[in-house]
Amino acid sequence: MLNPQLNDDGELKHLLSIEGLPKRILNQILDTAESFAGVAEREVKKVPLLRGKTVCNLFFENSTRTRTTFEIAAKRLSADVITLNVSTSSQSKGETILDTIDNLTAMHADMFVVRHAQSGAAHMIAKHVAPHISVINAGDGSHAHPTQGLLDVFTIRKYKPEMHNLRVAIVGDVLHSRVARSEIHALTTLGVPEVRVIAPKTLLPQDVEKLGVHVYHDMNEGLKDVDVVMMLRLQNERMAGAMLPSAQEYFKIYGLTSEKLALAKPDAIVMHPGPMNRGVEIDSAVADGTQSVILPQVTYGIAVRMAVMSILAGN
Amino acid sequence: MLNPQLNDDGELKHLLSIEGLPKRILNQILDTAESFAGVAEREVKKVPLLRGKTVCNLFFENSTRTRTTFEIAAKRLSADVITLNVSTSSQSKGETILDTIDNLTAMHADMFVVRHAQSGAAHMIAKHVAPHISVINAGDGSHAHPTQGLLDVFTIRKYKPEMHNLRVAIVGDVLHSRVARSEIHALTTLGVPEVRVIAPKTLLPQDVEKLGVHVYHDMNEGLKDVDVVMMLRLQNERMAGAMLPSAQEYFKIYGLTSEKLALAKPDAIVMHPGPMNRGVEIDSAVADGTQSVILPQVTYGIAVRMAVMSILAGN
Amino acid sequence: MLNPQLNDDGELKHLLSIEGLPKRILNQILDTAESFAGVAEREVKKVPLLRGKTVCNLFFENSTRTRTTFEIAAKRLSADVITLNVSTSSQSKGETILDTIDNLTAMHADMFVVRHAQSGAAHMIAKHVAPHISVINAGDGSHAHPTQGLLDVFTIRKYKPEMHNLRVAIVGDVLHSRVARSEIHALTTLGVPEVRVIAPKTLLPQDVEKLGVHVYHDMNEGLKDVDVVMMLRLQNERMAGAMLPSAQEYFKIYGLTSEKLALAKPDAIVMHPGPMNRGVEIDSAVADGTQSVILPQVTYGIAVRMAVMSILAGN
Repeated sequence: MLNPQLNDDGELKHLLSIEGLPKRILNQILDTAESFAGVAEREVKKVPLLRGKTVCNLFFENSTRTRTTFEIAAKRLSADVITLNVSTSSQSKGETILDTIDNLTAMHADMFVVRHAQSGAAHMIAKHVAPHISVINAGDGSHAHPTQGLLDVFTIRKYKPEMHNLRVAIVGDVLHSRVARSEIHALTTLGVPEVRVIAPKTLLPQDVEKLGVHVYHDMNEGLKDVDVVMMLRLQNERMAGAMLPSAQEYFKIYGLTSEKLALAKPDAIVMHPGPMNRGVEIDSAVADGTQSVILPQVTYGIAVRMAVMSILAGN
Repeated sequence: MLNPQLNDDGELKHLLSIEGLPKRILNQILDTAESFAGVAEREVKKVPLLRGKTVCNLFFENSTRTRTTFEIAAKRLSADVITLNVSTSSQSKGETILDTIDNLTAMHADMFVVRHAQSGAAHMIAKHVAPHISVINAGDGSHAHPTQGLLDVFTIRKYKPEMHNLRVAIVGDVLHSRVARSEIHALTTLGVPEVRVIAPKTLLPQDVEKLGVHVYHDMNEGLKDVDVVMMLRLQNERMAGAMLPSAQEYFKIYGLTSEKLALAKPDAIVMHPGPMNRGVEIDSAVADGTQSVILPQVTYGIAVRMAVMSILAGN
Repeated sequence: MLNPQLNDDGELKHLLSIEGLPKRILNQILDTAESFAGVAEREVKKVPLLRGKTVCNLFFENSTRTRTTFEIAAKRLSADVITLNVSTSSQSKGETILDTIDNLTAMHADMFVVRHAQSGAAHMIAKHVAPHISVINAGDGSHAHPTQGLLDVFTIRKYKPEMHNLRVAIVGDVLHSRVARSEIHALTTLGVPEVRVIAPKTLLPQDVEKLGVHVYHDMNEGLKDVDVVMMLRLQNERMAGAMLPSAQEYFKIYGLTSEKLALAKPDAIVMHPGPMNRGVEIDSAVADGTQSVILPQVTYGIAVRMAVMSILAGN
């Protein structure tokens, strides 16, 4: 029952995946993020919590977007940020990754933000590092991307604080999503009574019902009376494998339009992790519409990352 | 008569092009730059004017040189600088650029420095952003590159403060120059009575006389008694289109040598926006000679960029 | 007898190579590094010695590892760091490098950290820059990489302070090593009485004995009773040229294993400049063993670079 994310006092030591985070820790992150959401509104958007600390952005897979969010979060906390784009091609074996980690540790790095194409890379690194170092998983394979999951939950809590009363629909490529499973877990942990997934069979994991969700293949049924519509990104390269005839076809059946959204509750919010494929998963009228909280998600993403970094640095 | 660069109080809101800047604003920028020119001489070359602000260097086109000048200017103002090199290949439509802008805005970016191969990109972004955000055009297509134009004017004013008495010659590829037209506009606005362009017909815009300049095709005539010789860069890829036989041929006719410079006033200054093609537009003896102010231009470029950023942040 | 690394008062002006550094300066760097070794242990790992200074990391050759160490060192000294990756392909002639340098100087850069594939590049730049600017050689061709040499000497002094009593063995590709010759020079200058090199003839410079070292081709003889085993990295591309049958073969003869290390003194330390080729130059059991000081070398590397930068900034 050893949890690799917690230290002996049960405090957050690494952020590797939402699975395994006790409700207490989830709430600590969300509450801390609440206080940072205000920092961005201030004239001087900086707090000195990580002054003199060195945060290493270790990107074995390119992701300008994710890299930027962590860089901004770390700089607002006054940390020194070192970004390393390490092509996996120059990294023949796992052992070499650990040599890289050992070297950066010897340079007194305090925190690693790790992005890697392979599932489990951040776990492996967390297992390896010295006790005073923290690791944040910034996305590994299709496994986990916990800060994305947390910012989604934060956004839901912000707009729909009565979580015990919510109906949430997750729409699209659950199978390959880095976050969908984490999301389901977090929502359930925080007391959301009904989580639905809406997707073609080819984009759902085989045992998806075991996660405690209701499965729908039809948007008209699945969206009915929900409070939250969480769209997932459809990566073009998945289209073929999923036996989807075309993006147009997908949009027709699973794309979120104003008409389909009208089936949800009138005050339902619409979410998307970005970057959006407008006209594939979502219509521009909805993406830019009054029910969309897609840009607030981005804003809260900085607050959540600042919260995670400051909690890890404090423990 | 709505000027997209000014706010309702007539203050600078964005810097998109020199055209449309009232004389009052031009002088404000030049006077502010004057005060920053001193900062670089100090022991601690930093002022806290942009502390806690996030400046996004958004480069859709690579330009290490320009990126570096803005990065240095922003850091000397104590801003946090985030650099994004966004290849236009991954950006299929204009709409996606605006999604990128919206996302960075949601992360509470305060200022965008935009470089794009297409004319009008910075204007489009300025039109789109929220009211508290400022946009600086760091070069778009062959349209505008206002900070380069401003630093040139600043340099002229520094060395030849009696602008009402000046004769300025701009030499070379006016047709494709990002700055030549802005320059002409700024010099005229600030009261320079005589601006000449010297170039082969193939490197001049058709209606160049309408800008109020005197046109010369012969260096010996055009350089006669001028106070300022402003050389333009000749891009190799333009050579063919301009029906220029060769770089050697160009240098023979339009390259600035000590002999040709002797036709100008004895205290004339020589300028070049860099990077220089030594032996094509300009002889090394002139580039490195006593009349050259090419390196001071670079120095003043930092002061001018600091001035623009601090004015925008204040308005 | 003019030393390009010292100013008129005999103080360090540039760090280009260990050769030519008087014993006095070597000791000044090592003693200053001693004081910085403590900074990294502090809660806030930052000192304001280079606040407001601009350090330009000018990398004409890619080296993430070296770039990172200088970036961390400069940021811990509170400098503004500008990194320029300049591909040598876009740099046709030496003159253009100097134009780049002149431009960055005009932007009031205070220090250049230069990495270049050609021997002598940093020297050329140091010769060219204005008097108030300092240049640090971060590796040029197979010529010199002085901070690596200094951190090795610092590590030896830390673990074996009685340098007048030491026997040091340098093992491997001395011929192509950027550091081996500097090391030999520094150790001799600091009074180490016996330096050995152990390598196949094909990986030794022709006149290696003239450096005052003892030459061995057999590990069993060469490692006998040494206090320090300094392994060099074997670059794969050297294998063919050195007429080495294979990496396996090399490991068998010159790779450091626990058995071979047992021939050295029981308290001998093992060093490697990294990145290691485990199973080629060194067995993992030794690299990660109790006698290894390979990671402390990395730690001291930051302290040594901070020391060099702060000494240069002070002179």
